[in-house]
Amino acid sequence: MSFFSQLNEAIKSNHSLLCVGLDPDPTLMPTGIGILDFNKSIIDATKDLVCAYKPNLAFYEAEGARGWEALKHTIAYIPKHIPVIADAKRGDIGNTARAYAKAVFEELGAGAVTVNPYLGFDTIEPFLDYGDKGVFILCRTSNKGSADFQSLTVEFNGRQMPLYQAVAERADKENRNGNIGMVIGATCPEELNAMRQAHPDLPFLIPGVGAQGGDLRLAVEYGADQRGAGIIINSSRQILYASRGADFAQAARSAALELRDAINACRRI
Amino acid sequence: MSFFSQLNEAIKSNHSLLCVGLDPDPTLMPTGIGILDFNKSIIDATKDLVCAYKPNLAFYEAEGARGWEALKHTIAYIPKHIPVIADAKRGDIGNTARAYAKAVFEELGAGAVTVNPYLGFDTIEPFLDYGDKGVFILCRTSNKGSADFQSLTVEFNGRQMPLYQAVAERADKENRNGNIGMVIGATCPEELNAMRQAHPDLPFLIPGVGAQGGDLRLAVEYGADQRGAGIIINSSRQILYASRGADFAQAARSAALELRDAINACRRI
Repeated sequence: MSFFSQLNEAIKSNHSLLCVGLDPDPTLMPTGIGILDFNKSIIDATKDLVCAYKPNLAFYEAEGARGWEALKHTIAYIPKHIPVIADAKRGDIGNTARAYAKAVFEELGAGAVTVNPYLGFDTIEPFLDYGDKGVFILCRTSNKGSADFQSLTVEFNGRQMPLYQAVAERADKENRNGNIGMVIGATCPEELNAMRQAHPDLPFLIPGVGAQGGDLRLAVEYGADQRGAGIIINSSRQILYASRGADFAQAARSAALELRDAINACRRI
Repeated sequence: MSFFSQLNEAIKSNHSLLCVGLDPDPTLMPTGIGILDFNKSIIDATKDLVCAYKPNLAFYEAEGARGWEALKHTIAYIPKHIPVIADAKRGDIGNTARAYAKAVFEELGAGAVTVNPYLGFDTIEPFLDYGDKGVFILCRTSNKGSADFQSLTVEFNGRQMPLYQAVAERADKENRNGNIGMVIGATCPEELNAMRQAHPDLPFLIPGVGAQGGDLRLAVEYGADQRGAGIIINSSRQILYASRGADFAQAARSAALELRDAINACRRI
């Protein structure tokens, strides 16, 4: 089954647009627990509440080869009906991009990946060629500095627009396998609104609620498509680190349940 | 010693601006040899001919945890006086960028890294904070698709310029630790020329000669600074895969020697 079909099934079965970011940070985790055991506890506690999991590769790479091993085992542990997005933000040329695609899709076994568009579309194609996999292209990210370049006004197709809109227009045109999504931060709701108006059918991966301060209601109202879906709301720290005590998994479940229901309360369905 | 001091020492002692890209591709390597042994043979054969080595992380990640282990051992095997650039092209926000910086500088032990500017400068700062490490920012890359977004005209500081120039202007301004370099492909010599005129002192990492078709003479003439240095010319496939036979290391040495001398013949020193 393709990533987006699997995602839509998980959205329905768990009645959830919530994605939990599996970002194990040793400075925030409960003491005395390893990455893999931490992740397993989080997955056990939340797997009936989420539409996807999104491990960010940085936190695993920081632990070297052991971290990669933990990431691979984490992905294998996630129930098969819950899709996994490898948050890798990769971007490289030709044969190198193919090696990255092999790493995330074949070696790690993820169902989708995040990629960076700065190097151009020929660097994204090796990911898109995996037609059953999802490819989320960074568009307007959730950090303060995202405006540095993403919001610069460019001339594109004879019109003036912010760079991130040019990225999305091009993405829409290149979406021959129907496996492209966009990453747009909850911290910029006006941009999210404009993007949904311009691209009614593209799936949006939306980080930035919770610790980063994005407005949840606006993210759902502006981001959701006409079916009240088409968005994945990611939360990492707010859920993973709801408690640093022995009750961390139960606290994560409570936080995930609360956020899932808060998202659903904003949906027009 | 800082990365750029070490680089300048290696440039002098090996009389070389050549960087060998350690990109082990199993489809091109001699059969029956592992990544680490292949790299060791290449390093042994070329270590007196190069100013730096540049492993691209993609080729190691494609092999999973074993690949990461091979990368770490490869970097440890490189003689201490030859600097190492981790070609990672990373870019992510806040605490995630810090995890990537930890991965490349502390876990892998690289002296420099390549980073992607699309997410903005707050995502590059965690790398720049390692003041003794080098940070090469992607500016104008060597692939065909690099024009898709990098060459779009933007308004920046009240003037019109291509996006990649805006990235370089901002980089020059943020270079308080003096540890920034730029990545500019040999495949776009006019852009390289304009960049050197505008930024006489920034070090340039230049991929794209050899297999990608960049003109070596123009890359050196346009890219070099007033001292006839300030550039690192990278070559990967042309050297690594000069032969697929048992003589691959000797063939790599011959190719590296030839390219080093060809580069030096173009220097105005």
